Order: sequence, then C-alpha cells, then structure tokens
Amino acid sequence: MQIKILFMRGDKEWLQEIAEDFTRVDVLNVVTGTPHLEYEFYEHIAIHKLLEHCVKAERDGYDGIALNCFYDPGLREARELVRIPVSAPCESSLHVASMLSAGKFSILIGRRKWMPKMKDNARNYGFESKIASWRILDLTVPEMKDMEKTEAAILREAKAAVEEDMAECIVLGCTGMVRQAERVQKVLGVPVLDPVIMTTKMAEIRALLWKRFGVSHSKVGGYEAPPSDEFTSIFTKFYGFPP
Amino acid sequence: MQIKILFMRGDKEWLQEIAEDFTRVDVLNVVTGTPHLEYEFYEHIAIHKLLEHCVKAERDGYDGIALNCFYDPGLREARELVRIPVSAPCESSLHVASMLSAGKFSILIGRRKWMPKMKDNARNYGFESKIASWRILDLTVPEMKDMEKTEAAILREAKAAVEEDMAECIVLGCTGMVRQAERVQKVLGVPVLDPVIMTTKMAEIRALLWKRFGVSHSKVGGYEAPPSDEFTSIFTKFYGFPP
Amino acid sequence: MQIKILFMRGDKEWLQEIAEDFTRVDVLNVVTGTPHLEYEFYEHIAIHKLLEHCVKAERDGYDGIALNCFYDPGLREARELVRIPVSAPCESSLHVASMLSAGKFSILIGRRKWMPKMKDNARNYGFESKIASWRILDLTVPEMKDMEKTEAAILREAKAAVEEDMAECIVLGCTGMVRQAERVQKVLGVPVLDPVIMTTKMAEIRALLWKRFGVSHSKVGGYEAPPSDEFTSIFTKFYGFPP
Amino acid sequence: MQIKILFMRGDKEWLQEIAEDFTRVDVLNVVTGTPHLEYEFYEHIAIHKLLEHCVKAERDGYDGIALNCFYDPGLREARELVRIPVSAPCESSLHVASMLSAGKFSILIGRRKWMPKMKDNARNYGFESKIASWRILDLTVPEMKDMEKTEAAILREAKAAVEEDMAECIVLGCTGMVRQAERVQKVLGVPVLDPVIMTTKMAEIRALLWKRFGVSHSKVGGYEAPPSDEFTSIFTKFYGFPP
Amino acid sequence: MQIKILFMRGDKEWLQEIAEDFTRVDVLNVVTGTPHLEYEFYEHIAIHKLLEHCVKAERDGYDGIALNCFYDPGLREARELVRIPVSAPCESSLHVASMLSAGKFSILIGRRKWMPKMKDNARNYGFESKIASWRILDLTVPEMKDMEKTEAAILREAKAAVEEDMAECIVLGCTGMVRQAERVQKVLGVPVLDPVIMTTKMAEIRALLWKRFGVSHSKVGGYEAPPSDEFTSIFTKFYGFPP
Amino acid sequence: MQIKILFMRGDKEWLQEIAEDFTRVDVLNVVTGTPHLEYEFYEHIAIHKLLEHCVKAERDGYDGIALNCFYDPGLREARELVRIPVSAPCESSLHVASMLSAGKFSILIGRRKWMPKMKDNARNYGFESKIASWRILDLTVPEMKDMEKTEAAILREAKAAVEEDMAECIVLGCTGMVRQAERVQKVLGVPVLDPVIMTTKMAEIRALLWKRFGVSHSKVGGYEAPPSDEFTSIFTKFYGFPP
Repeated sequence: MQIKILFMRGDKEWLQEIAEDFTRVDVLNVVTGTPHLEYEFYEHIAIHKLLEHCVKAERDGYDGIALNCFYDPGLREARELVRIPVSAPCESSLHVASMLSAGKFSILIGRRKWMPKMKDNARNYGFESKIASWRILDLTVPEMKDMEKTEAAILREAKAAVEEDMAECIVLGCTGMVRQAERVQKVLGVPVLDPVIMTTKMAEIRALLWKRFGVSHSKVGGYEAPPSDEFTSIFTKFYGFPP
Repeated sequence: MQIKILFMRGDKEWLQEIAEDFTRVDVLNVVTGTPHLEYEFYEHIAIHKLLEHCVKAERDGYDGIALNCFYDPGLREARELVRIPVSAPCESSLHVASMLSAGKFSILIGRRKWMPKMKDNARNYGFESKIASWRILDLTVPEMKDMEKTEAAILREAKAAVEEDMAECIVLGCTGMVRQAERVQKVLGVPVLDPVIMTTKMAEIRALLWKRFGVSHSKVGGYEAPPSDEFTSIFTKFYGFPP
Repeated sequence: MQIKILFMRGDKEWLQEIAEDFTRVDVLNVVTGTPHLEYEFYEHIAIHKLLEHCVKAERDGYDGIALNCFYDPGLREARELVRIPVSAPCESSLHVASMLSAGKFSILIGRRKWMPKMKDNARNYGFESKIASWRILDLTVPEMKDMEKTEAAILREAKAAVEEDMAECIVLGCTGMVRQAERVQKVLGVPVLDPVIMTTKMAEIRALLWKRFGVSHSKVGGYEAPPSDEFTSIFTKFYGFPP
Repeated sequence: MQIKILFMRGDKEWLQEIAEDFTRVDVLNVVTGTPHLEYEFYEHIAIHKLLEHCVKAERDGYDGIALNCFYDPGLREARELVRIPVSAPCESSLHVASMLSAGKFSILIGRRKWMPKMKDNARNYGFESKIASWRILDLTVPEMKDMEKTEAAILREAKAAVEEDMAECIVLGCTGMVRQAERVQKVLGVPVLDPVIMTTKMAEIRALLWKRFGVSHSKVGGYEAPPSDEFTSIFTKFYGFPP
Repeated sequence: MQIKILFMRGDKEWLQEIAEDFTRVDVLNVVTGTPHLEYEFYEHIAIHKLLEHCVKAERDGYDGIALNCFYDPGLREARELVRIPVSAPCESSLHVASMLSAGKFSILIGRRKWMPKMKDNARNYGFESKIASWRILDLTVPEMKDMEKTEAAILREAKAAVEEDMAECIVLGCTGMVRQAERVQKVLGVPVLDPVIMTTKMAEIRALLWKRFGVSHSKVGGYEAPPSDEFTSIFTKFYGFPP
Repeated sequence: MQIKILFMRGDKEWLQEIAEDFTRVDVLNVVTGTPHLEYEFYEHIAIHKLLEHCVKAERDGYDGIALNCFYDPGLREARELVRIPVSAPCESSLHVASMLSAGKFSILIGRRKWMPKMKDNARNYGFESKIASWRILDLTVPEMKDMEKTEAAILREAKAAVEEDMAECIVLGCTGMVRQAERVQKVLGVPVLDPVIMTTKMAEIRALLWKRFGVSHSKVGGYEAPPSDEFTSIFTKFYGFPP
C-alpha cells in the first residue's frame, strides 16, 4: 500500500529519506510572510495559509497532513475542516516520549516566551503528569541555524534534565532543532526525539489507519466541521476559490 | 477618573447602561465575514480583524478592550500585541463564578461542538476543579435569538445543574444568552451570570488597575510582544498601515 | 451609584485613596487581642470578633465587606452568615494574578509556617495549576514594619521567582507587605500585586454586581445560612445582642 | 502499655467498648452552646471550647485526643497547639477506606450544605482521586436520631453508590450515623465504615506511635506552635487560666 | 526495510493481514495454564512465561514485541529486561484515541473487576484527563466468544458513551472484543478502536524507530535492567537456560 | 484480644519488640532466589512465593499479613486472593506521613531506578499531592547494610528535604533503612518514619478492625477473587497443593 503525505514546510529530500518506502512525501514551503512562528500573531497569520492548503490537500487525495512547527499551529482548526489525519510535532513527540519513559521526560525549547502556550498544549493533550521539566536554550529559531551552537545548548540542557530533573527521555521542542537528535542521543545514553521524525512516523501510522481501517479523528464533538454550504461560501470568500 | 473601553461587538446602548458612570463604552461591530463564531475556522477568521482593532485601540488611547464571544477568541494573541488590559467573557465569568461558589458552578453552552475547546480554555485558566458540569442547550447561536425558547432551555438545564450536579452558581456560556440572567436567577435562587456583564465589570476593574496603578498583564513570558521593527513590518504588510 | 464598603482593619486614609470616587470606605480596626494572625489559634480568635462585625455590617447597610489578612480568615464563615459580598486578599489577588499571567505567578510570604494553610486555600480557590512557586521572606508580620528591610527581601525573592521559577507576575502574600508593590514592579518589570489594592478593587466590583444586578455568593450549598431562629438565639447568646 | 485518650464528645461506655483493653477512654461532653455543628458558625464556636480542652488534655497527660464530628473541626488548630496526636473522624475514615478499596469509595453525608467544606478537607488530606461520590441522605444531624429512618436512607444511598458510582467501600460521613455500619455492611457486602470506630482505632495507633516511638505530627511548618510567652499570655487572656 | 514482530498470543493469519507488507508477524500462543487473564493472580502466572519469551525474542533478532491483553501484563517487566520495543494494547489504544479526540474518549471493558487496575494503568500512562468514561459490558472474556451478544453489548454501551458521556471515540478495552470495531464504527459514526490493530500499528512504528533511528524505551531510570551477571544467574535458575 | 500477624521477611525478634503485647508475630523468611527486589523481574519472581504463603496464612488462621519491601510487591494480588488484611510498607508509611504533615513530606529511596514505579504506587494510593520530593541516597539495598554510611546519606538527604523541599516529615523508603529512624528524627526535629514500624502498626489496626468489626478490604471490584473451583485448580497446578 502506498500513502501520500503533505508536509507544511520542510526539506523534501530529508523528509523522503526519513519516511518509509511506501510513503510519498510532498512539501509545501508556503510563504506565510513571517520569518518564523515564535509569536502568537505570526502563528495566527501562518494558519491562514495553512488551512487553505489542508483543504486543498484533502481534495487532492492526500492520505495525511503533517504540520511542521512545535506550536502545532492550526492543528485544531485543520482537524475541524478535513477528515484525513493531521499530525503535528509536539503532539507526536509527546506520545512517543510517553511510551519510552517509565517515569518522565523533558522538553527543550528555544525561548521562555514559548513556554506557556506549549505547556497549555501539552496539558490539553493529556501529558502534564509525564513531563519532568521544560528547559530553555535561550536561542531564537533563526539562531538555531548555527548547528554547533545549538548542539552545545541542547547537550547542556539535556544533560541537566537527565541528571537534575530525572528525565528519562528528551524531546527536542522545536523543528529548528532538527537533525540534532542522533548525535545527542549517543552522548547522553537516553532516547532523544527529533520532532520531525516523530511527526513523520505518526503521520504514516495515522495515514495507514485511515486508508486501511477508516480510522481518523472524530467528527463528533470538537472537530465537527461547519455545515457544508455555509463553509463553502465563507471559504470561497476568503480564499478566492471553492473548497 | 474616566475610563474608555472598546468592545469588540455588542449593543452599545445596553453596554453603556451596564457600565458604570465613569466608563465610556465604544463598540466596534466589525464585519468579520462569518455569521457566528461556532467553528474554529470562523473564529480564526474573526481574530484577524480583531487583532487589527486591538492594536488600533491601544494607539487610540483606550484603557481596555473587551472581547465578546465565550470562546474568548484572540485573547492570547491580543495580550501579546498590546499592553492595555484585554478582558473576555469566559475568563471573566469563571473568575466571578469561582468567588460566588463555596463548591462548584455549572456552565451552559449551546452545542456539544463547543465543549472541548471551552473546556481546554477553562482548564488553562485554572478552573477545572471548580466546574460541576457543562450542560448543553442544543441551540445554535442564531437560534438563541428566540429569547423565549432560549430562556426555557436555560431554565431546564440550569435547574438540572443545581439539583443533579450540585452547582451553586450558573454561568451562561454564550454571549448569545445575553440579558437572560436576571429572570433565570429569580426563578432558580442561585446566582446566574451574564457573560457580557461579567466582562464589562472585569474590564472596568482591569482598566482602573492599569490606569491608576500601572498593573496590566505581564509582558515577560507568554505575552511577550514581537520585536518592534519586525512587528511593524509584518503588521503593515497584512493590514496596510503601520501599527 | 455610591457604594459603602467596610474594611476589617486597615489605614482608612490610604484605603479611601486607593478606592474609587464612588466608594465610601469605613474601617473597623477591631481589637482582637492578638498581636498578629500568623497562627491558627490567633486567627481563630480574631474570627470571633470579625463575624460579629460582618453581621452588623449587613444590618447597617454596607454593600460589601473586605477582609484584611492574606490567610483570608473567616471568609467562609462570613459568607455563610451574610448575603452581601465578602472579599479577601488572597482570593482577590490570585484571581487578578491569573488574568495577568499567560503562564504562572509566584506568591511571596513571610514565614514557612504560613505555607501549608495558604496552599490549601489557594488549591480550594482553584489556583493550584497557576502557581509557579511560594517564596519565603523569613520575616514575621511585626518585622515587616521595617519597610526597607522588607523591600530588600521582596526584591530578592521576587527576582528569583521571575528568573528561576518562571513567574510572570508576583503576588505580595501578606497585608504586612502593603505599599511595596509599586516600587518593586518598577524594578522587576513584571506586575507586582498589592493584596490590599486587589481586595479593594474586587470588593468594589463585587459590591456593584450586588447592588445593581443582585449577584452575590450563592446561598445554596456551602454558604447556606443557619435557620433564622436558631441563628438568632445562638448569635445573641455569644455576642450579647441579636443579629 | 496503657494509653489514655480524650474524646471530645461521645458515649463513653460505647467508646470504651470499641477501644482496645490497653486504652482508657475519657469523654468530654463539652457544652458548646450550639445544638449541632452543621454550620461554619457553630463549628467556629465549638472550636473555641475544644481548643481549651486540647491544651488541658496535653497538660493532664493524655496520649491522644479524638475529635468527634465529621467536619474534623479544630483539627488544624489543635495540632498547632499540642504535641500529642490529634485524630479526627473524616481524616481517619478516609485513610482506612483508601486501604480497603482497589478502586474508589463513597461518602454518605446528611445535607448538601456540608459538601463543599468536606470536599475541601478531603482534597487537602490528599484523597480526591480515591472518592467515587458524595451522596446525600437529606437528613439533619438531629433527624439522624431516628435510627430506622437513617438506616433506610443509608441503605438507599450506599446501594446506589456501590452499583452506580462503582464504590467499593462506604464511609458514613457523620458521627450522627454512628452504630449503623455493622448492619449495613451485612446487607451490602462491602466494607462500611463507622467514623467513630475509625477515629478510635487511628487514635490508638497514633498514641502508640507517640508513646513508644516519639512519632507525632510535625512541629516544623504548618503545625508550628506560637512562641511560648506570647501564647501563654493570649491563652490566659481568653480562657482565664494559663495553658 | 523489513521488520519482525513477535506477538504474545493471537491469530497469526489475521495479524499478518492487519500488519503492513514490510512486517513479518510471528505468534507465540504460549500455554500459560490459565483460561484467561481476568484476575491479578492469573496475570501474574502468565507474565512468568511471557518474560521468558521476551528475552528469547530479543536474542532471536526480533525488532519488537507485541503483548496481547488489555491489562498490558508484563509491560513494565519486559521493558526492564529487553532493549527492543515492547507494545501493548491499552497503552497503544489510548495514545491513538487521544489523537483522535478533541475532547474525551470512552473505554468499554468486560467486567467491573477489571476497572481499578486498568484505571491505574491509564493514569500512569498519563491519560486520566482524556477519558470520558469506563463502561462495562458485563461479559467475561470467555463469554465474548459469542460475537453477536458481544456486538450488541458494545453497541449499547458505546452509544451511551457517545450520547451521555460525550465520548468522541470508543476504545474496545479487551482483546476479546477483537474484530468488532469496523461494524460498530459504521453504526456509531465515531472512531472505534480495535486494541489489536492499535497494538500492531504502534509496534510497527516503534520497530521502525528502533531499527532506523536507534530509538527505544529509555534504559535510564525505571526500565534499567539488572546487572548482567546477576541477571544471567537468576534467569538461568528460573528458566533452565541462560538469557 | 490476641492477634496473629505473619510477616513476609524480617527479623522476628525485633518485629515482636515493636509489635504490641497482644500481637503474636511470625516471620517467613522465604527463599525467593533473588538477592533483593530492586528490579521488576526479581519482584515478579518473589511474588510467586509470596502469594503461596498468603493463601496458606489465611488457611492457617492468621489475622493479617505484613509485606516487607517498599515496592509493596504483591499487595494487589494478595488482596485479591485472601480476605484477611494485607499491609505493606509504602502504603502504611504514606498514610501515617499524611496525618503528620500539615503540608508535605519527602521519601528517601536508594536508587533512581526505583522512582518511577514507587511514584506510580504512591499516585495510585492517592498521595501525589502530599509528596514534597523523592530523594535518592545512591545506595543499593545490599550497600545499606553499612549502617553508618546509610545513616550519613539519610541525614544528608533528609536535611535537604526539610530545608529545600519544605518537607515536614521524612519517610524512609526502603526496608533496608530499618532501625535508622529514631536517631535521624532526633537530629532533624521532624518525624522520621521507619517503614517496618509503620507496617506493623497498620497491620495491627487492620487486624483488630477485621477480627472485631469484620472490616477488611472490599471484595467487590478490584479485589474480587477468582471463582473458587477455577482458582483451586490453577493454584494446585502451580503450587502442588490445594489452596
């Protein structure tokens, strides 16, 4: 069985490499007009574009959508609008980290600014009791492009999380920390999770469950979609074409 | 001391009436392009306009902003962008209800669809342990314009909340249930909170704390604003004028 | 609209100054026979006098009562006996602090002794998940009369709370720390809450809700009053005059 | 080893019967001036007398004190003032019920009025997650003197708790329901706890731990006593004799 | 990439069918000596055999192990002894259900007896806040072999969960309810999760993460294995051959 | 009244000394084949023997069983199989510690490995909110035989718990720390609990409640025993004699 997953942002070549053979990866490096998503306002703006492409992705026959920022921006909105599975870095990583830890795990993030909203997300996903600590690298997303500096900060905080906070597993809490997990894991001796790899794997499993067993997120309750006519008219007004 | 509060939506005459003498109420019945805010997607769209007006409101010298939908749409984003106090119906009502109840209180909402997100909001505000129940009227926002039908549904569910769920106070969890509290309170004999009145009073207290004592939401942490230059450029690009 | 609020203890002049123009402040500096309220036993003794005056205040036409110790002594008992709103420093401050913090806030208290009961109060009010830390100044209430020493201790612990515990807002958790908030707030750059100002503002809003909209604490459930005849007889026996 | 326990209220003969041979029971049927303790105000008044007798009990060489109302009135205050163990019905019963239940247990109380405070107590003791339900008999304490009517109400609510709320054990949540447990337990087939028996057993174990191993409640933190001189002077002023 | 997963119990043909093409399924229908695992004692006995085979499985080059009872028996012990991923029905199903529900989900189990331990497991996995209800079919595991009767019971309780408990997704909480999900899902219109399918998919993703990225459960903390020599000697003593 | 309690492991002479005069202590120093119980696997093996002896103990007329490892191994299984009370060190100590602390208490354990499972146990018993910290001595059970080294480690961590974590009481979280409590308590000035003494006292109270009032753990729900015939056959198969 072949599945097709659309990534909102990312390096297509690498994503195809971490995906399984049965997965075709497409990437949409949408121009959102903001340099990063560290602020609620920027996130809000990005979601606008993102929702347009989620609706299109479903129409275009994708088997799943993968978001690509640790704030999981638009996850709730996207699940409201489409039936195909939508996966996201924070949610995916926290699920895996929970299964890997007899006790608790820690999450490394870039800046203090991010913490309250990410904590709210984690609590809403149900993981509050599994988190040993949130630790801050004091790096912005643009600064994380310096891979060496970022690795040093990750190592410093991850080590402290393992030794002082009793973390048994480390989640890299920003897609800007991508491709750092493998080396850090070797040094630390505890599992270190790359959020993009986790999203990819979770998107694949979700796509398989959907395509083979018809299992996707519930449309009864919080993810109920707007009435079709009303939605069509509003969507068209805002995006210039029908959903 | 005089204060000026800008309401996002509402009936100006009534709002001025429930406000205190020292408060000048202005209302912005923004055309958001959606008939109501029952869906995440509609909420998302409305927030776009709302943020524009929050930034303007601060520039125009308002002492506070009052949102006017029980989802508290844009509360977090608005607090990120401005320093003046931003108040919202769900948050305001739950704070008052907590002070009025030795035990727990119940919240009446229109449809099941709304529950998960509103519960997440209530939990994030810290009120999970104070809520006896969420009860559903099975009415959409447009249907709530039928005041009699809505009152009957409120009475039915509020009575059940008091008698079966041990609620000591009732929160009307939709600004569509406005102006119903007084009659229902008389019938039931427990406090019944109109979310718009609660928002108004909380907005007034917050405006006074800000104007007289310099106390508003913290700009350290989750409500930290984007860097000024970056923000100016992005805001201007999206709204067509500088913030 | 004019409202009349009775404060249990306090500096009348200053209270009138922080109150709004429409508020008439009266203060009852009751002689309780204890030098302070740091101990449960002293608190118990003070409550005896306090309840007498709460019942009188309602009879005398006050629109609200404001307690004046961060233990919120007698809050539950007073709300049982009267219908008019009763406000208290810890409850009021924690509600405001919650609205000001995207994440969590910290509370500074004088001595370790106070912590368990205050934590129980905070948890019962519903705020457990919003508190970053409780920090101890190691000062008794009498020692807090030394304003400079107290300010230094507040600054030291508040700074640590903001930097180490990720607090976004500081609550001064003793009415002995009164009139310190403004200066500390300027130094720290996060909101710092004076518990007496918070009580005053909350008492004002509560009085307005009561006088204009008939909204006060629920008399169904935990705040149910004793049967009138029984109460009259018992009250008279203990206080020497009928309620 | 012989131990001496002072009960605050109770039927001495029965208490001596349920106590072990090594325990000498004394009972102080203090005249508190209130017919029962259903209201906070009455409880407050009773605590005044109760504290006097706790202090005396320690001076008189008792090895433990047992309170005798399910509100556990004065428990915190008494532990502050004395070093000898103080036991109480709600606390004792909930500890035993927790050990008897793989899942959860239910608590039967007389009136809705009692619920919020008792729930706060149970939460502060740490038992929130072990309670299946609180169920109300709709009986005042005086009405519970009708043993048959009370038994019928207990059976009705206990059965519902076991079958509907999945309770595995029942706590009789009022010392007015005394001597009912044995019969009800036979009918229901789950453990039914008499709060006075539980208090007695817990008081005995606590007295033994104190007398033989020097283990009683901590005097560091919340149960720290007032400074000796200050306390002596205040106690003497209120009770007319030194502590 | 090919992976090999060893199932502890199950129908090999069906398991191979629900597995992906890249997965080779082996099944070990161990004779444990108990007819089912409804009791702690039976579970304890079964774990003895199960641990033997987990250790062998790792030695034999399997890429993962899948347990096959909703109690997740031996999950913790197995993860202590091996490095390869171990997946289990309850844990796997609850993770998927969480991602499918904006609000909460319900779990159907066979008998009341099972509830306390399964609830403890669910709480320890971190899912307490995501569960709407546990509902009981009143069927033993052997009785579930009657597929029609079981389907009727599932439909009855699942419908009640969706309508009364606000469940957005249903977890079939016993591997005895296998192969029922598809039909029930069609009738109810919400996702219904077969625990064996969920375990299979989670085992596959975990095996891929392990084989390709070296990510498995942490061996620092709770899953730390016994010292090699000590373990070899004890294992050999109990199983008659070295690990 | 005389009671007979069977201890699973322990020093009979000392146990008889800490027991009361009315208690006859028997000890079963079962050869389990593992040097200690620090690993899940060892615990699992030990439980096998332990269950055999619990069933025998009931048949032999014991009034109670006392487990003797802080993991409380087999507690749930034993309660399923017998009606007589079963007490255990962690459960017993945490109940007593809760009653001794106005605030929170700390638990000292030997190694990090133990923490996740012990935390799960403590949470399942209901004590999560009462625990200030878990502190690690970095000592294995065998190393604890060096009483001086162990005492030094206890003192170091207990002092830190009291001063830094605000613990009001200390629980020695390993039966390997036995007979250390008295000295440490004298140095620290807060209650320090020996887990074996706590188990003994709790076993005595539980035996008295059972023998005199017929109160033991509930057999409805989680501790329901297997059907008699089925159990007899399985037990006989595994232990070689009928239960």
